[in-house]
Amino acid sequence: MNSQSVNTQPAVGFIGLGIMGKPMAKNLIKAGYHLNVYNRTASKADELVALGAVPHASPAALASKSDVIIVMVSDSGDVEQVVLGPSGVIEGVQRGAVVIITSTISPSTVRNVAAKLAQKDVEVLDAPVSGGEEGAKNATLSIMVGGKRGIFDRCLPILRAVGTNVVHMGEVGMGEMAKLCNQIMASLNLLAMCEGLTLAAKAGLDLEKLLEALQGGAARSWALVNQAPKVLKGDFRPGFTIKLQQKDLRLALGAAEELHVPLLGCSLVHELYKAVEAEPGGELFGNHALIRAIEKLAGCEVRVP
Amino acid sequence: MNSQSVNTQPAVGFIGLGIMGKPMAKNLIKAGYHLNVYNRTASKADELVALGAVPHASPAALASKSDVIIVMVSDSGDVEQVVLGPSGVIEGVQRGAVVIITSTISPSTVRNVAAKLAQKDVEVLDAPVSGGEEGAKNATLSIMVGGKRGIFDRCLPILRAVGTNVVHMGEVGMGEMAKLCNQIMASLNLLAMCEGLTLAAKAGLDLEKLLEALQGGAARSWALVNQAPKVLKGDFRPGFTIKLQQKDLRLALGAAEELHVPLLGCSLVHELYKAVEAEPGGELFGNHALIRAIEKLAGCEVRVP
Repeated sequence: MNSQSVNTQPAVGFIGLGIMGKPMAKNLIKAGYHLNVYNRTASKADELVALGAVPHASPAALASKSDVIIVMVSDSGDVEQVVLGPSGVIEGVQRGAVVIITSTISPSTVRNVAAKLAQKDVEVLDAPVSGGEEGAKNATLSIMVGGKRGIFDRCLPILRAVGTNVVHMGEVGMGEMAKLCNQIMASLNLLAMCEGLTLAAKAGLDLEKLLEALQGGAARSWALVNQAPKVLKGDFRPGFTIKLQQKDLRLALGAAEELHVPLLGCSLVHELYKAVEAEPGGELFGNHALIRAIEKLAGCEVRVP
Repeated sequence: MNSQSVNTQPAVGFIGLGIMGKPMAKNLIKAGYHLNVYNRTASKADELVALGAVPHASPAALASKSDVIIVMVSDSGDVEQVVLGPSGVIEGVQRGAVVIITSTISPSTVRNVAAKLAQKDVEVLDAPVSGGEEGAKNATLSIMVGGKRGIFDRCLPILRAVGTNVVHMGEVGMGEMAKLCNQIMASLNLLAMCEGLTLAAKAGLDLEKLLEALQGGAARSWALVNQAPKVLKGDFRPGFTIKLQQKDLRLALGAAEELHVPLLGCSLVHELYKAVEAEPGGELFGNHALIRAIEKLAGCEVRVP
């Protein structure tokens, strides 16, 4: 990093000020970092600029002023665009800088981006996060990190400013791979909750009592504790949208295809979400709206009156 | 109940002294109940008789001396046999007694048994338990109870002597229905853990670090916390055997068939277990050996060296 003095914190650039990115960027300002910001829709930076962040006209311009550049855009293509595309990070970035990709994208895209940036003596960490908007706001994200150990150690204070559980998983790409394993498990835990609740509803069980009875035992999951109560209320506002969930499952199934790992359950969940996406506005429902696919099949609604 | 005085605790009969039944019976003795016992293999009662339990030659003989009769045998057929069969409970039971079925069996079998016993003025509670051998030993079982509210209240002290989380779910059969919902969720949470871990292993992730990274987030489940570490060690001793897990999934799928609820995920798990049952001794592995089916498909082993 090219900090001017030992006591100066590195200048951090932040690209992608969406639902997750903006609160993460705020937490970096709170932690005392000089923050450069870029967003495709420039007005999304206004709030941060009011807090002292410096806006830039392109990822390249931002990169030229930053020691560490955090990229939090949606998908693999977006990351390639802002890093490798015209006026991208790669056109302005300084030797010795570090690019931290916090988006959930494919491990192979991360490795490809890292190889291109290595030619400019720029290191990459992939550091996808888990914990949603809530976790981003409260700086309690879980962060799974891939990349060289030394780079991880250098960037740890920055990652700790946005998350609590920061784990080094291995070489570049391994953070993304861990995140995909997380998404496989989380989505199947959701299916578990949905199938159990649907049978319960059709059998006429008291669904609130059921949650009380099941939370102490082997049925317990993050989904059962956090998402089942929303299902019973019919509250399908996102947390995490089906659109993003499907993107992540596509990435998981893609990685599993490369590695010849049949994911029978995960692919089933991916298919079932299509039945919810078929509804108007369905892809913007929260991912617990998976229940709506099972409800359609069973011809019932899983609600507490 | 036909207790001789207000201060006398009811005499409890216990039928089925297996892995779960024996420690439950011990906890009833500890709690001060006079205990009558019966087991098909009589020698299994020896330890309890040494503690003061009174052995009986048949379920009918046991029932004639008991105010409350607990039945903890394996399957629907076994329950019908010891309750309704020759020398069964129904031949000796006294008016006003209560039969508590703690086995996991089909809700419709429970309702059938209850209808037959009602003709003798005998009430039934279905009270299947969750928490395994460990929970049975420590009297920390979760118990989901179906039956009349008044009967539930009367029997609550007995249930509290063997479990901690005792929840009244509704009319007769609803305890079993809740337990089946529990088993659906627990088995799919297992599949979630198995698919995620298998991709991780094939990708070369550090599996212990992965568990550390994932336990704080949306992938969290009872299976991930309690069973994934056993998988990594290759320790497939039961907890809960695949044989019993398959019996319970058969019951869940049967109940779901009656109610026209398609359980795509649960039936997938049931099918996958067949690949583990095909191994010598496979049906006596713990239910977390589901991983062995996914390992076969992916051609790898999910272990920490």
